[in-house]
Amino acid sequence: MDRLEFLFNPKQVAVIGASQSPKKIGYAILYNIINSGYKGIIYPVNPREPEINGQPCYCTIKDIGKPVELAVIAIPAAGVNRVARECGEAGVKGLVVITAGFKEVGIAGNKLEQELLSICREFGMRMLGPNCVGLMNTHSPLNASFANGFPSLGNISFISQSGAMLVSILDWSFEMGLGFSSFISLGNKADLNEVDFIESCAGDPNTSVILCYIEDVTNGDRFVEVCSAAARNKPIVILKSGTSTAGAQAASSHTGALAGSNRAYDAAFKQSGVLKADSMNELFDLARAFSAQPLPRQPRVAIVTNAGGPAIVTTDAVEKNGLQMARFTKPTIDLLRANLPPAANIYNPVDLIGDARNDRYHFALDAVLKDDNVDSALVLLCPAAVTEPEETAKTIVELSNYHKGKPVMAVYMGGKSLQAGKNYLTKNGVPTFTFPEPSVRALKGMIEYAGYKYSPAAPVPVILSDIDQAGAKTVINQVLADRRVVLLGHEASMVMSAYGIPASHSHLALTEDEAATIAARLGLPVALKVSSPRIAHKTDVGGVEIGLHSEAEVRRAFNRIMEKVRYFVPDAPIYGVEVQNMVDDGVEVIIGMSRDIQFGPLIVFGLGGIYVNLLEEVTFRLASALNTRQAVEMMIAETKAYTLLKGYRGKKPADINALVDVMLRSARLVTDLKQITEMDINPLRVHQKGVTALDVKITIEEKAH
Amino acid sequence: MDRLEFLFNPKQVAVIGASQSPKKIGYAILYNIINSGYKGIIYPVNPREPEINGQPCYCTIKDIGKPVELAVIAIPAAGVNRVARECGEAGVKGLVVITAGFKEVGIAGNKLEQELLSICREFGMRMLGPNCVGLMNTHSPLNASFANGFPSLGNISFISQSGAMLVSILDWSFEMGLGFSSFISLGNKADLNEVDFIESCAGDPNTSVILCYIEDVTNGDRFVEVCSAAARNKPIVILKSGTSTAGAQAASSHTGALAGSNRAYDAAFKQSGVLKADSMNELFDLARAFSAQPLPRQPRVAIVTNAGGPAIVTTDAVEKNGLQMARFTKPTIDLLRANLPPAANIYNPVDLIGDARNDRYHFALDAVLKDDNVDSALVLLCPAAVTEPEETAKTIVELSNYHKGKPVMAVYMGGKSLQAGKNYLTKNGVPTFTFPEPSVRALKGMIEYAGYKYSPAAPVPVILSDIDQAGAKTVINQVLADRRVVLLGHEASMVMSAYGIPASHSHLALTEDEAATIAARLGLPVALKVSSPRIAHKTDVGGVEIGLHSEAEVRRAFNRIMEKVRYFVPDAPIYGVEVQNMVDDGVEVIIGMSRDIQFGPLIVFGLGGIYVNLLEEVTFRLASALNTRQAVEMMIAETKAYTLLKGYRGKKPADINALVDVMLRSARLVTDLKQITEMDINPLRVHQKGVTALDVKITIEEKAH
Repeated sequence: MDRLEFLFNPKQVAVIGASQSPKKIGYAILYNIINSGYKGIIYPVNPREPEINGQPCYCTIKDIGKPVELAVIAIPAAGVNRVARECGEAGVKGLVVITAGFKEVGIAGNKLEQELLSICREFGMRMLGPNCVGLMNTHSPLNASFANGFPSLGNISFISQSGAMLVSILDWSFEMGLGFSSFISLGNKADLNEVDFIESCAGDPNTSVILCYIEDVTNGDRFVEVCSAAARNKPIVILKSGTSTAGAQAASSHTGALAGSNRAYDAAFKQSGVLKADSMNELFDLARAFSAQPLPRQPRVAIVTNAGGPAIVTTDAVEKNGLQMARFTKPTIDLLRANLPPAANIYNPVDLIGDARNDRYHFALDAVLKDDNVDSALVLLCPAAVTEPEETAKTIVELSNYHKGKPVMAVYMGGKSLQAGKNYLTKNGVPTFTFPEPSVRALKGMIEYAGYKYSPAAPVPVILSDIDQAGAKTVINQVLADRRVVLLGHEASMVMSAYGIPASHSHLALTEDEAATIAARLGLPVALKVSSPRIAHKTDVGGVEIGLHSEAEVRRAFNRIMEKVRYFVPDAPIYGVEVQNMVDDGVEVIIGMSRDIQFGPLIVFGLGGIYVNLLEEVTFRLASALNTRQAVEMMIAETKAYTLLKGYRGKKPADINALVDVMLRSARLVTDLKQITEMDINPLRVHQKGVTALDVKITIEEKAH
Repeated sequence: MDRLEFLFNPKQVAVIGASQSPKKIGYAILYNIINSGYKGIIYPVNPREPEINGQPCYCTIKDIGKPVELAVIAIPAAGVNRVARECGEAGVKGLVVITAGFKEVGIAGNKLEQELLSICREFGMRMLGPNCVGLMNTHSPLNASFANGFPSLGNISFISQSGAMLVSILDWSFEMGLGFSSFISLGNKADLNEVDFIESCAGDPNTSVILCYIEDVTNGDRFVEVCSAAARNKPIVILKSGTSTAGAQAASSHTGALAGSNRAYDAAFKQSGVLKADSMNELFDLARAFSAQPLPRQPRVAIVTNAGGPAIVTTDAVEKNGLQMARFTKPTIDLLRANLPPAANIYNPVDLIGDARNDRYHFALDAVLKDDNVDSALVLLCPAAVTEPEETAKTIVELSNYHKGKPVMAVYMGGKSLQAGKNYLTKNGVPTFTFPEPSVRALKGMIEYAGYKYSPAAPVPVILSDIDQAGAKTVINQVLADRRVVLLGHEASMVMSAYGIPASHSHLALTEDEAATIAARLGLPVALKVSSPRIAHKTDVGGVEIGLHSEAEVRRAFNRIMEKVRYFVPDAPIYGVEVQNMVDDGVEVIIGMSRDIQFGPLIVFGLGGIYVNLLEEVTFRLASALNTRQAVEMMIAETKAYTLLKGYRGKKPADINALVDVMLRSARLVTDLKQITEMDINPLRVHQKGVTALDVKITIEEKAH
């Protein structure tokens, strides 16, 4: 906890609002600190109490007259800011403001919170809260919260934007035998937020895994920056709620959280090496896995079982989660064959059959963990007449400790008869499950994280040549001067050209005759597209005709377009029709951009064409991360478009290098020009050699940048 | 248990292999029957024991000299068939063969098992097993198994193809407070299989929900027939394992590659109203939901909570599972506003805030359950200072009983401090969870099942006119006579025509000149496709050219095709090139068929074209179920193709009626002609009026039908 020592490990703590009355929160906090075994000096502060717990009680913090590092404030909201100023004047370094009644209650509360923040800034104090449960550190130890209980010693840090969830998890952790290094209730995040604590926990030697429950991220850029670095060091698992439309509504009525779009969070997590938990169960399953077991090097899983059915269920889960069933080496198979009964299955899953005692488990688990083709092991045990669940638990712990580099988990399928064994396993750091599927999912999370942790650090960003930022800006400024927000086709083409993105030639024809002349110049066949600042989806209103092979066809198409467009959108101003040479070879992809309020420009890539929204075969990244060839290549490889680009069903491969270049340039474009609010290059056709942006839509707005 | 009374509720039970030695399985079985409180007569049979438990022991079953309904056999495999015959001769109605060493050990065991089955058939006995744990019925009561323990009385029947899983679940059920009506260990399913027991449990008044763990289905047709009827009566939830690698056959058609036996099981489950559990947790979560709560009428969920964060997580889960957050009526909102504190959220989720005691829960839960816009309720509770988990549990049970038609579930987020409340809820039939997501998933399963249960019974199958089965057979027989298994284009067209499926005109050209002549006759533009019995994917080898607008183009294309095909597949016999008129309007869909070994012909429908395998936007049904307009329409509506067919982005709607007709005819075709092993109509173009099968691939084999 390098940066926030005064919060997690203060030399002195003042409890402002400390109370003798067990009904008061100030009572709970004071006694929580005392009972947690806190080794520093505690100062109760309350003008209405002469002494508490045999200690003198101070009227104000300034009356203490000695240094105080941390003050926990639990008095009514109206008095908090006055007290905070006194803390500042007394040289306090950190505040934990438990008191509610700030931003979460509306405008007046928000004003109060802004004042409180200013006071902190004025005195250089850092603050947790307001409106929080407090924080706990089992290693100092310190329980500066009003929660009922103190977690067992462990290496998991849990950062929660919901106080109730923190209290729930604390209560639940005892029966799970789960140990924690710290619990942090974020409250309103007026000053310190999730990123500060992720950073702090990343530097804490007592923390091995960082769990978060968050409803929003305060600063997208800092989140990505801090997590990207922290996740190289230890796993960060986040349950982000408010991910659905309905959930986001609930979020905004709850803490006034601005829920960023799902896609942006997914992209940000992926790019930062953050694991996203899809459920509360998954969050804690991953916590258990990471807290005690090493990371697997590869996804090859061995299963050792005393029953067939559960092993099949587990095998299904292995495949469903994209892991692999390990294939044992010959020596392992020979060893198993020589030592297990004939009815046993010596291939993976190793079935020791129903009469297996501990010795058989010991032999088989040791054999498979020794095998170079095995990266992790799952041990399944069902209660049968001769099963030895406790002895087997000891075996699993022993072998898990012995074979250090390979994670081992246990699935003890049953209840009472296996409880002692389960407890032993849990206590000794082997994550233990009742049913197989969650264990496999946890293993999958470990593999995913290992992929990030051991990936080479980000290489140097690509330097793009021939970027004419000024030229692109000129086009945009002209459009803004024209009081438009959508670029016309030829304007968008100019922006593309300025950033070195090949776009198809497109020329505006005002009349049928002009269209014919331009077509002749470009060479047949051509496509015609209506040009209007008010028509976003040209195809939908009959504004596009393709594959025009003769002058007569061009003329007829021009007139048809004009006729249809005037019929469907009679009020739209029509600038003319754009004549474009036809490009119909190559793979159709989309490159697009939308801006996320938290994370900035978000790039989409995937299968293009008119069905892009129907198929949704796309993937997202923050533009900020698309500045290396590797990052772009990984993004492309994630999509079904990649299958086409590599050459699908006998087709020659498409020019992925050129595509990568265009994606780099697109990311650069939307990063440079913040006036661009949305962009669609759809389709971009990727040929065997080179690419062509066939239809480019750019929407802009005036911005002060 | 109407049909299998002699198994579940026999008047007499003989235990063959009964023993005094606690190490013997025959000991466990005998004492399990005695200790379960079995009210009928028990006969121990063992030639080596004079008496057991103060009862005379019989040498053979024939020595009993009185009627015996059920015999449980637990002697070494070698003696089983002799003993089974004696049972038959003694007039026994049912056998439970515990003994292992049959089919599961290989060829010799399989032979033994077949003999055993013959003996049963000879005497009209029915048999459970061999190689099983036995069966239990808590209502008779009868524990005819060697499992350690007897389940609590309840209304869940669990049928398991894995004995170990059954024993595990039994052990686990005690700590979950889960009650069962029966446990059935299927063993090798030599005679009685999952379908027999589903049928029997469906008729059992003590069973409300049927759970199965199965690894395969013995008879697909019977499974569908029995489950379709049984599921109208009570929910059937199945965890089917072995879903992973199973169906990886080398199939030459798109449909075959897409199918795999997974799809067949999914389709069969869907059509039979069977719920598929994706994990063991889900299997039992659904069991708990169904066993005690009524079915919701619609998917509108109300949430009542004392904490915001967990409510957002729950709201996310509601949306993710396709359920809806209920929108309360005005009277409900007014009522909540008038009676809850101002800081409470009176919209859904109803947040009673952290200081809510039982009274607030009572008031709010009653209010929302009364609301006509609410179909189900989830009650969330986090431990806070004044929370009353036990009183609130009583409230939830009381209101759940009072508001009869609406399911209520509880999420008690925490551990020890909530345990008493959790226990009360569980005991009184309110499914209770620690985290929210599984409760929502269970609710989703209930909605899904309600959809089946209350759907109108299948209407009368459509009568299709103009089916020339004989004509189609003639074509197929000619191809078989020619020793080919793949129909050429024009042959496939003839089969289509015989079944009234419009196919594009296609004529074989042997030379460039013939191609030109046919093209002129059909009218330009045309498409050319190579005709060869050995080329499955014509596009992949350059065997297809489309959009040929002039005679010159047709001639060039003919030569290019010949050249490429000879280059890529030099050994393939080339019959010529098929000339087809171009049809390029309409929505491209695929209708395909592959045969599943268990479930027969499986129809695929979805987005067609060359990317069908890439996109996998398809859905499956058993052909047998596609004999009504409604069934076909539901299948179409499930896919993204439906969005296109309805008219996507300004396009006019396609002729869905014509498509339905073709799907009905396709299902009929593959049902009638069992020689057809695989079929692809891809693409079928659905026009504004009518449809055209553009490319039809039919694979056949000689069959005795």
